[in-house]
Amino acid sequence: MSTEVHAGHGHVLRLRRLGIDTYDEPVIYMAQDCPVCRAEGWQALARVEVRHGDRVIVATIHVVTDGLLAAEEASLSNAAWTMLDAVEGGTVRIAPSSPLYSLSSVRAKVYGDRLEEPAMRGIIRDVAAGRYSPVHLAAFVTACAGGRLDLEETVSLTRAMVDVGARLTWPLSPIVDKHSVGGLPGNRTTMIVVPVLAALGFTMPKTSSRAITSPSGTADAMETVAPVALDLPAIRRVVDREGACIVWGGAVRLSPADDVIIRVERPLDLDSEGQLVASVLSKKIAAGSTDVVIDMPVGPTAKVRSVSAATALEARLLAVSRVLGLRLVVERGDGSQPIGRGVGPALEARDVLAVLQRDPRAPADLRDRALSLAGAVVHLASGRPATESYGIARAALDNGRAWSSFQAICDAQGGMRVPPTARYTSVITASRAGKVTAIDNRQLARVAKLTGAPKAAAAGLELHVRVGARVEAGQPLYTLHAEAPGELEYARTYAPDPGAIVSVAEGG
Amino acid sequence: MSTEVHAGHGHVLRLRRLGIDTYDEPVIYMAQDCPVCRAEGWQALARVEVRHGDRVIVATIHVVTDGLLAAEEASLSNAAWTMLDAVEGGTVRIAPSSPLYSLSSVRAKVYGDRLEEPAMRGIIRDVAAGRYSPVHLAAFVTACAGGRLDLEETVSLTRAMVDVGARLTWPLSPIVDKHSVGGLPGNRTTMIVVPVLAALGFTMPKTSSRAITSPSGTADAMETVAPVALDLPAIRRVVDREGACIVWGGAVRLSPADDVIIRVERPLDLDSEGQLVASVLSKKIAAGSTDVVIDMPVGPTAKVRSVSAATALEARLLAVSRVLGLRLVVERGDGSQPIGRGVGPALEARDVLAVLQRDPRAPADLRDRALSLAGAVVHLASGRPATESYGIARAALDNGRAWSSFQAICDAQGGMRVPPTARYTSVITASRAGKVTAIDNRQLARVAKLTGAPKAAAAGLELHVRVGARVEAGQPLYTLHAEAPGELEYARTYAPDPGAIVSVAEGG
Repeated sequence: MSTEVHAGHGHVLRLRRLGIDTYDEPVIYMAQDCPVCRAEGWQALARVEVRHGDRVIVATIHVVTDGLLAAEEASLSNAAWTMLDAVEGGTVRIAPSSPLYSLSSVRAKVYGDRLEEPAMRGIIRDVAAGRYSPVHLAAFVTACAGGRLDLEETVSLTRAMVDVGARLTWPLSPIVDKHSVGGLPGNRTTMIVVPVLAALGFTMPKTSSRAITSPSGTADAMETVAPVALDLPAIRRVVDREGACIVWGGAVRLSPADDVIIRVERPLDLDSEGQLVASVLSKKIAAGSTDVVIDMPVGPTAKVRSVSAATALEARLLAVSRVLGLRLVVERGDGSQPIGRGVGPALEARDVLAVLQRDPRAPADLRDRALSLAGAVVHLASGRPATESYGIARAALDNGRAWSSFQAICDAQGGMRVPPTARYTSVITASRAGKVTAIDNRQLARVAKLTGAPKAAAAGLELHVRVGARVEAGQPLYTLHAEAPGELEYARTYAPDPGAIVSVAEGG
Repeated sequence: MSTEVHAGHGHVLRLRRLGIDTYDEPVIYMAQDCPVCRAEGWQALARVEVRHGDRVIVATIHVVTDGLLAAEEASLSNAAWTMLDAVEGGTVRIAPSSPLYSLSSVRAKVYGDRLEEPAMRGIIRDVAAGRYSPVHLAAFVTACAGGRLDLEETVSLTRAMVDVGARLTWPLSPIVDKHSVGGLPGNRTTMIVVPVLAALGFTMPKTSSRAITSPSGTADAMETVAPVALDLPAIRRVVDREGACIVWGGAVRLSPADDVIIRVERPLDLDSEGQLVASVLSKKIAAGSTDVVIDMPVGPTAKVRSVSAATALEARLLAVSRVLGLRLVVERGDGSQPIGRGVGPALEARDVLAVLQRDPRAPADLRDRALSLAGAVVHLASGRPATESYGIARAALDNGRAWSSFQAICDAQGGMRVPPTARYTSVITASRAGKVTAIDNRQLARVAKLTGAPKAAAAGLELHVRVGARVEAGQPLYTLHAEAPGELEYARTYAPDPGAIVSVAEGG
């Protein structure tokens, strides 16, 4: 949020709440006969600086033509209302948005120039200040995609992204961290890796994201067992006491430009290697991490789809980390099917609790993957041999210390609670006998979303089969969970055919 | 507007008008507790297909959280309301937007692949149907900019753009046309070239654009003397009777994808050569033109800024025209300063009328440029020598036949009228003596917009000096025209320093 506005410049309008949610796009509503619009010659879609008290945002104008607002009134979309901490009847001062000089660097990049560090800083400063419209952001992301960022540019981008946000510092070292490249439903290893490492005395201030397009993010799953929207002082208190936390990163401004950029990358589905590396590493550096393990599931319906893509991404992650003084290893894993059984916030949390509580029915793949990652962190941060490191991690889980640590972390974050249970379920069965040959992570995630996840925390699905299993006709493949009968019915009606999600081949 | 929607599929909501102008972005407003949103898991910014009667559009969801709409109601932004021909209390049927398959071609282009003709057709079909969000459009435009479209791709793009829209056919040949690449205030040669050629018996069905970011488009200037929003049958009637017309192209769907693409190119200020060529030529081919003269002003603050850029653009225009069977020549011109004296719809129309009426005070540069272009058309379409062609054009102007033809065209379009005059004016004078060394077209356009042009048709400015002239301190440089005292005051307050618009160097 820029503060470069001329004091006293601009026009004053009185705020009236209309209550319109435009997701994260800040919109200001002004009446057609508003003297400001007339005077400035502003039409709908013009972008202006809106100041309320000491906060400033850049918002897009939507013009009210039929009397919803009086000439001297303005309203804000809900996101803009929150960003400005606005109050009904308060006043906003509106001024033309200053020229977006950094856009000339984006244009230069489009025309084939390299982006030097000062140019990158200029762009990222404007992005973090909300001065880029979605159209500008899309142009920047596209201009950098397709391998068009070299190593130096990726380093510049990462540095610039760190520098525009908040930054945590810790008195101790190492500060360990782990990050999953994603795309795999149910992959909630963080909630196991963190307490294992905390139990071993490592410092791990973990910030996680909420779902954007998936049925659950780590922050959503963790929220079913403890509060996650902690501010920086609260995070510090939890980590000082328990050595670790599992909180929602959105409440703190670590690499805020990343949060802005990621929102246009999703609708474009552009996996820009340089942007991905900068996104991951800037968050880790801003969090003060020194030793980072990257979980990279590889599979046809995972985010990283091939071994060659994994190799390229790993090489770039390692090279940039080296320049920026971050110790990092990549742990590739099987990305051909979900990890654990549950998909959806509470269902995933239940899988995690079963592993931590050493329930014999706990999903073995989730346990194994979490221990591999925890072992990799121990190996990286302590320098002990890999096998010994894995054994140390496993012992911390098996002797119950990780479970104790998890409970203590939940307590420190505001109190542990029991994940909710869905009242309505429906079992989906195999239409024929055969062998499970593939599970489509993307379609499975879609079905879980149709049930209401992640907004309905208890909703989602439970998977009963794995790739390679033999099934009989009529045998359960997965169970849908929903909080309302209508949502269950809805998911049953609009879900893709089960055969498109779990492929069953006859014979074999 | 796609028609691929499953009959009976989707949810029905009742329409209530809120009256929100989001410019050209179709938005649908739905209540937070709307069962449709809950059932589909739709959040703000999701894109959905909205059907009203036999019309379908793709719109972006904005969610009303504070009771502006009841659960079973929906509203539409003004543009969407018009596109669907909606009525208060009518019903809309809402369904998930079908997958945007053509986006994978855009991604392939980002990763360096060439766009083959079927891929280009798929993209342009979706663009014309309004299925691309601004973010998708920006990615497409960026992926094609910076010289990334080769000749074949530009040809494919042009063909695809023609094929998705309406197309005019004429019984006669040649059908002549002219197009200005733009960026030069006051360059209203079309309103002179058309009647000159009509007077000579040529057929010239001219469609022009309104201003998007400039203080006046040809359609805006023409509208101050005659109606311009004619539909296809009306255009045909006018051309059958007078051999020519000067109408607004936005009322007819000639190359509609271009109208969509152009709206994201402006905020990005990306002059993609391939897109520019396809934009210009697709409109001409769709209008049924056979012989086209391109007016290309070259200057530091014009759209084409250098001779090398002009050479590259000209080569591409000629190559694509040749493949598509269009006869075309490029007439470069001086783009270092405005043409004519007026900037703004009515002021520009007055310059045109003065030239057509052979007023001795008419701006000579506008007359000269219009005659050069008209001569070039005669030369191209008739094959007569260039000098003879110019003489023929000049004679048609000088003997008053062009003026008669212009009046007849205005009559046929619905009746000629007198351009309005601004009631409030203010003269801006030179602060020191010296020689005018440069005039900044972009700053000048900005000042004209501050006075209220093009919405206020009489507003704008009148330029009193030209590059090379000597001025004394206190001598008028330009006069601001406004329809209201507030607007005049506003333009005086917020206009850049006159020295930044008209550069006056001492001595010389």
